[in-house]
Amino acid sequence: MSQRFSVTYWLAAGDAEEARGRAEAVALEQTLEIPRDAVPTGYVEDVMLGRLVALEPDAGSQGGYRATISYANDDVGGDFLQLLNIIFGNSSILDGLRVIDIELNDELEALCGGPRFGAEGLRSRAGASGRPLFMSAIKPVGLGTAALAERAAQFALGGMDFVKDDHGLVDQATAPFDDRVKACIEAVGEANGRSGGRTVFVPNVTAETGLAIERAHKAREWGAGAVMLAPGLLGFDVARTLARDPGFGLPVITHPTFSGANTITPTTGFSHRVFYGLLTRMMGADAVVYPNFGGRFGFSQAECRSIADGCGEAFGRLRPILPAPGGGMSIEKIPQMRAVYGDDVIYLVGGALMRAPEGIVEATRRLVAAATG
Amino acid sequence: MSQRFSVTYWLAAGDAEEARGRAEAVALEQTLEIPRDAVPTGYVEDVMLGRLVALEPDAGSQGGYRATISYANDDVGGDFLQLLNIIFGNSSILDGLRVIDIELNDELEALCGGPRFGAEGLRSRAGASGRPLFMSAIKPVGLGTAALAERAAQFALGGMDFVKDDHGLVDQATAPFDDRVKACIEAVGEANGRSGGRTVFVPNVTAETGLAIERAHKAREWGAGAVMLAPGLLGFDVARTLARDPGFGLPVITHPTFSGANTITPTTGFSHRVFYGLLTRMMGADAVVYPNFGGRFGFSQAECRSIADGCGEAFGRLRPILPAPGGGMSIEKIPQMRAVYGDDVIYLVGGALMRAPEGIVEATRRLVAAATG
Repeated sequence: MSQRFSVTYWLAAGDAEEARGRAEAVALEQTLEIPRDAVPTGYVEDVMLGRLVALEPDAGSQGGYRATISYANDDVGGDFLQLLNIIFGNSSILDGLRVIDIELNDELEALCGGPRFGAEGLRSRAGASGRPLFMSAIKPVGLGTAALAERAAQFALGGMDFVKDDHGLVDQATAPFDDRVKACIEAVGEANGRSGGRTVFVPNVTAETGLAIERAHKAREWGAGAVMLAPGLLGFDVARTLARDPGFGLPVITHPTFSGANTITPTTGFSHRVFYGLLTRMMGADAVVYPNFGGRFGFSQAECRSIADGCGEAFGRLRPILPAPGGGMSIEKIPQMRAVYGDDVIYLVGGALMRAPEGIVEATRRLVAAATG
Repeated sequence: MSQRFSVTYWLAAGDAEEARGRAEAVALEQTLEIPRDAVPTGYVEDVMLGRLVALEPDAGSQGGYRATISYANDDVGGDFLQLLNIIFGNSSILDGLRVIDIELNDELEALCGGPRFGAEGLRSRAGASGRPLFMSAIKPVGLGTAALAERAAQFALGGMDFVKDDHGLVDQATAPFDDRVKACIEAVGEANGRSGGRTVFVPNVTAETGLAIERAHKAREWGAGAVMLAPGLLGFDVARTLARDPGFGLPVITHPTFSGANTITPTTGFSHRVFYGLLTRMMGADAVVYPNFGGRFGFSQAECRSIADGCGEAFGRLRPILPAPGGGMSIEKIPQMRAVYGDDVIYLVGGALMRAPEGIVEATRRLVAAATG
């Protein structure tokens, strides 16, 4: 018998009857996608059709209902993207409908695979127990390889655990991928030699079809410590492919670019916790970059805290991962962030350190001290 | 000197000064992503930084402003996904900001490549001049290969130009990809032999990393007439990879699953015209599936018409493509659709034909007659 998994949706509806009708329409849309009266009896109706298993008013300020629908693993057919398609395929085009929870099962957890390293693995590789981790990005695009590598070295000397490419650095003529990644790995390695640190360089491998996987492997051979990619551009299976490849063996960090519309309207898409937390773990990434509260983007403190929850809470056998909030961060915001995130976080700070009057190295040291003192 | 391209955004703002501030923040966010006062002078500031080139109040009912920002081809670095990243990367996470137009240039049109066949190529392959085209989908998931192939044959006998997989058909045990696609191609071929028609089968090749390309090539060898894929799941470069591969040489059709949040909130994401029309052409697909007005989804008639505009209007050297509206369609809606779309459309009708009392073959004939009579 096919195992079942479930998805909980928030849905807009004026009363319970309307809510039930909408939920049953979703159960049909996400699976058989034919008129209800054309559904063949037997296996198709009994197993493959989505099944409304719980419906209750939502306690939140938006009103509406919470509907839990169970689906058969047989609908998924062992394909990870089809799992996502069942969770929120055509129904993603409906207004007043939002994915707010996912519950998997043994078989689907095995299909996902999950993070290879997770929060514990990242800590262990960085030699960082009992403290938050730190990440910065080399930028801006347009600087040459040498200037970017110099910035990487300064961040490393200051005490960053991870120095990553800006997500807009790909293979521009001013700093082509191969040159840049090799130079940054070397510069970070030299800085580690001077400081005794364990900073790693994290290239952005987002690129055209096939090239991302190729670049990830090249970067590993050259000595990168992790890779970053943007699922919203590259597709939702590339992180998982790398995480499951025993010949790869590096952490993967996701970047939210191009996918913003999935969370920012509270009545559509996915909750922040599901999109940045649970989905990232299903994809097999070890850390997730997203915009922090109080910066240039509009995420609230509660939404950011919910992302951290989605990264850390029990989710079957899929390891906890680390949230990496960034975007308009500064040293001054550290106390507030410590109160919200505790130590289970990667502080992603960039621009503020670049314009610090004391220089990047000293500013980075001050950041680390503020978050660990 | 680097060629420049431009993106026009709708943005929410109370007055022109606020609008200018927001637009300049977008120009910075989409390129350098560092504080303005940390931008290096010279090439980085002069070329790589986005440049606000027009700002005017928007005439629409939402108020707000239209801001046109130009970016350098050097920002793109010859990478298609980086082009999308410049158009709407981190800024996709901002509320009150929506991409409403894109203007490319020679170099970027060459980078995109565009549709190999386009509307004219699809018509020519189908032998269909001076009339709309017709497409249906075999479903539901859970039926066996033989039952699905039988439905494919019936649609072909009735006069469909394209018979496609439902987007939820991947490699489920009940109808594995290889068996299903071979059987459907054979069934459609036999139907053509009886009817003298030129129906083609269109498999869904959306699948895990790498597998989509592999399945597309297998399907071509077996005799498929086009392939369908979902960029929202698979990433935004796979259609283009296939379109540019001289060894592939089949039309590509995109499906909107999982990507709905990109258009359904009028103050975020992309306009319908840009997302389903222009972006699809940039991706190199030849037709785009999207939900029609008056069906199960909430797109308005005006939004659907704007998609058809985005498919057909002049857009540099990128060929026009065909819109394929579907979702809750019926024969009764054909007159209204003819008024809206004219003949430059692929009617995507499925469920309504499956439950027609006269059977699929006759119902399909009635559909074709209604739309061409």
